Amino acid sequence: ICTDSAVYADGPARPTGGAAAVAMLIGPDAPIAFESKLRGSHMAHVYDFYKPNLASEYPVVDGKLSQTCYLMALDSCYKTLCNKYKKLEGKQFSISDADYFVFHSPYNKLVHKSFARLLFNDFVNNASSIDEAAKEKFAPFASLTGDESYASRDLEKVAQQVAKPFYDTKVQPATLIPKQVGNMYTASLYAAFASLLHNKNSSLDGKRVMMFSYGSDSTATMFSLRLREGQQPFSLSNIATVMNVQRSLSQGMSCLQKKFVDLMQLMEHRYGGKDFVTSKDCSLLAPGTYYLTEVDSKYRRFYSKKESENGKLANGH
Amino acid sequence: ICTDSAVYADGPARPTGGAAAVAMLIGPDAPIAFESKLRGSHMAHVYDFYKPNLASEYPVVDGKLSQTCYLMALDSCYKTLCNKYKKLEGKQFSISDADYFVFHSPYNKLVHKSFARLLFNDFVNNASSIDEAAKEKFAPFASLTGDESYASRDLEKVAQQVAKPFYDTKVQPATLIPKQVGNMYTASLYAAFASLLHNKNSSLDGKRVMMFSYGSDSTATMFSLRLREGQQPFSLSNIATVMNVQRSLSQGMSCLQKKFVDLMQLMEHRYGGKDFVTSKDCSLLAPGTYYLTEVDSKYRRFYSKKESENGKLANGH
Repeated sequence: ICTDSAVYADGPARPTGGAAAVAMLIGPDAPIAFESKLRGSHMAHVYDFYKPNLASEYPVVDGKLSQTCYLMALDSCYKTLCNKYKKLEGKQFSISDADYFVFHSPYNKLVHKSFARLLFNDFVNNASSIDEAAKEKFAPFASLTGDESYASRDLEKVAQQVAKPFYDTKVQPATLIPKQVGNMYTASLYAAFASLLHNKNSSLDGKRVMMFSYGSDSTATMFSLRLREGQQPFSLSNIATVMNVQRSLSQGMSCLQKKFVDLMQLMEHRYGGKDFVTSKDCSLLAPGTYYLTEVDSKYRRFYSKKESENGKLANGH
Repeated sequence: ICTDSAVYADGPARPTGGAAAVAMLIGPDAPIAFESKLRGSHMAHVYDFYKPNLASEYPVVDGKLSQTCYLMALDSCYKTLCNKYKKLEGKQFSISDADYFVFHSPYNKLVHKSFARLLFNDFVNNASSIDEAAKEKFAPFASLTGDESYASRDLEKVAQQVAKPFYDTKVQPATLIPKQVGNMYTASLYAAFASLLHNKNSSLDGKRVMMFSYGSDSTATMFSLRLREGQQPFSLSNIATVMNVQRSLSQGMSCLQKKFVDLMQLMEHRYGGKDFVTSKDCSLLAPGTYYLTEVDSKYRRFYSKKESENGKLANGH
């Protein structure tokens, strides 16, 4: 189980906050399997997103830098992965060699940019995914340096144009949940992958899915999954049924901005604080949830647990 | 490599602060080997030592509670270990079944108390280490509850009396460094063990050493090591020679209390702070050490490295 939450100080970054969790069941004979030889990682020491003020829950974030770091990490991981593929298979990897591309998805525009960036990489690699028409479109950008290529709006536009038909088949099916829910941080990539399972479950047998995982400050891995329908209860179709993405999305709740801002202010006040009790209202919590009831004068924390329906823990279906 | 540091707010706990590191080389055919079946662990959720104030480096500590937690963890680990021994060997374990006992050593008085506590456990277990004279001494405490036994000064006194001859042979050789250096936190147990290697290196072949590791808030393990002299360069004698404990202890430096207090105040001011440069004086640092030079207005941290002697990294000998 992996989770985190991100909240931002009042200002332009606040709407990009989010929280989510992903639970993964790991075992033998899985319908979703790593192709462990096909993997590229990248790390860099950068100050794109960090939490230097220990008394505050809010990070310091440089949105523009963070986006460039993301794209640089993407290029670097893709390059490593292509090199490994060449050693293993004796030929150049291109986006044609995978059926789907799933991205860490802070916002959908970055997913568009990222996939387009892979097409530009394929052009630079002279890969088979780039036909003559695409080559002509990319040609004016052939001599750009790395930094120039990240800054060029024209390249971005052309790349997205070239990528469009591929995007619709290889990326779009893996965008539903992040688009509906917004930034999900740690769980983001897996929410995107869950969207693919939801949209394409019955047709995924034998498909290869490239996953791009990114964390600011900065660590990234691109890795390959090979899917097969598998056996009950762990078949892809049953996983999609049990996840019931449509129902979860329909249960979303809206919250007035004023109420959200008030809650943020309460959290600011209580973050690292002591000597308070929390509201007794746990109506919004799922049955079985543990919740904080008190932090005493010595900062000791006390929790309670919401009663489960029928005395049993809910398990999601 | 394991390390931490602990500093305390002005007050009675301040002298118990400390910092140390231990580096362990792990490999096959080691002269120091785990007896991995002989191990007992204990965990508890307790507020004996914790750092709830994120804006401060200082912990909140309850010294009396922490000592009781330590002794409870010791009892619990010893009990588990004795049970495992009984299953494996078909007989009751006692302190007679190990040659040395090495403890996490915040201060030597607690090491005395702890070893004495093991003797009391042996009495309760009717173990072979307890002769008739010792049985008579412990008899008045036979019916104490656990809590009463932790609180009883009389029991503590009697237990230390019974333990005295065993302490001198089985514990004292593993107390030199913690006694000289003070609380070493994460490295404490291993500094105590290094003392044993230093004192007894040539006579440790075939010996069993019981190690008790404790961390507040609270996690503890008692585990058994079996030693053999081993082959160069990883023989116990050579390890003792290379460590050169005597030389390291002789290189200790004293610091006037006022200077220490001034440094603590500077650290309080800078902890989590920004927009400062550090003193350029690195005369006290070992050659090759990285050190902080600046934290800028965005909290970004910059480091430098002290020149090595002869352009080579010192490696301790």
